[in-house]
Amino acid sequence: MKVLEERIRQEGLILSDTVLKVDSFLNHQVDTELALQIGREFQTIFGDQPITKVLTVEASGIQFAMAAGIALGVPFIYAKKKKAVTLSEAVYSAPVHSFTRQEDYLISISQKYLGPDDKVLIVDDFLATGAALVGLCDIVEESGAQLMGVGCVIEKSFQEGRSLLEQRGIPVHALARIASMSPGEVHFIDNTGTGNARPEELMKESAGC
Amino acid sequence: MKVLEERIRQEGLILSDTVLKVDSFLNHQVDTELALQIGREFQTIFGDQPITKVLTVEASGIQFAMAAGIALGVPFIYAKKKKAVTLSEAVYSAPVHSFTRQEDYLISISQKYLGPDDKVLIVDDFLATGAALVGLCDIVEESGAQLMGVGCVIEKSFQEGRSLLEQRGIPVHALARIASMSPGEVHFIDNTGTGNARPEELMKESAGC
Repeated sequence: MKVLEERIRQEGLILSDTVLKVDSFLNHQVDTELALQIGREFQTIFGDQPITKVLTVEASGIQFAMAAGIALGVPFIYAKKKKAVTLSEAVYSAPVHSFTRQEDYLISISQKYLGPDDKVLIVDDFLATGAALVGLCDIVEESGAQLMGVGCVIEKSFQEGRSLLEQRGIPVHALARIASMSPGEVHFIDNTGTGNARPEELMKESAGC
Repeated sequence: MKVLEERIRQEGLILSDTVLKVDSFLNHQVDTELALQIGREFQTIFGDQPITKVLTVEASGIQFAMAAGIALGVPFIYAKKKKAVTLSEAVYSAPVHSFTRQEDYLISISQKYLGPDDKVLIVDDFLATGAALVGLCDIVEESGAQLMGVGCVIEKSFQEGRSLLEQRGIPVHALARIASMSPGEVHFIDNTGTGNARPEELMKESAGC
């Protein structure tokens, strides 16, 4: 997604060779028009699947799950990182290790909102270690729903997230794939190549999550 | 907002005389179409003001700040509840006490994204004790930006949030105002009356936050 790569080049701050800050337009201050474009891009990629719900995890996935939900015309669900006082009923949950914060936490969603009739698109802002995304995949599997794919806004291709998901046969698509970062420079993988699986390619190999 | 009141009547779960659960359509699973309608309603109410940014706090305010940002054609910012690893620069912050979770936390936003040139609409899902909203108002004041109003999706009018904000001269508008709750029944305040201030009424009395 060229417009996204351009914004990353213009506004992204490279804090180290693994940490990229995009909080001026994606995940602190949010450019709503760009977020909507991102949602439409996910619709272009995954819209030929009969998706019933978009799933993400709070907080920074919400704006992109909402944008994808708008484009696909379906509701979205965001997994909670703490059990809320009002989340009293049965939940699906999965443990997640945050490498950024060096802490473990539990993500959970109410069992009422996901079940065997659902076809789910998982969306998040970053695909890096894949920890939170694998947790979301575990939740989809536990619910009996069918996972149609994972869509991420930015992929750090030098981390293991994509391979963890693809080992499970999950179609993964990232809108901007970073090969490497060095001071002042982000190197993208050409997104038109074969690395970014179209859903139908991987779905042939596996039933999903 | 009649469509919202209807959904609350149909799907809201009253867990006690103070706790209302709306997580089937507002703040866990989200009806994206309803969220967009909510954004347009905020635009109808506050759109005659020259708003430059919408401000909320993670996580459950994000979908409504995004919807308001879409309708108003401006970016939104969500305050973080923890200082992120990538949020290394100077922040505005305010302490908040959560009555729901019985804990204290700090909300913060980067100083880069709010300043004296901004005219801010604060948006959140619930107006109850007002704790998080007062914290956001403190942040707007600290930044030198002008606070144009506070828009909430649901107000628990039997709690003190509205009066805390109005004492500071802040225009407050809630789309569904709950007078009281009893088992199986929600009683709304008529939203067409004088209690729900139009921005111009309160702005005459005070310069803001």
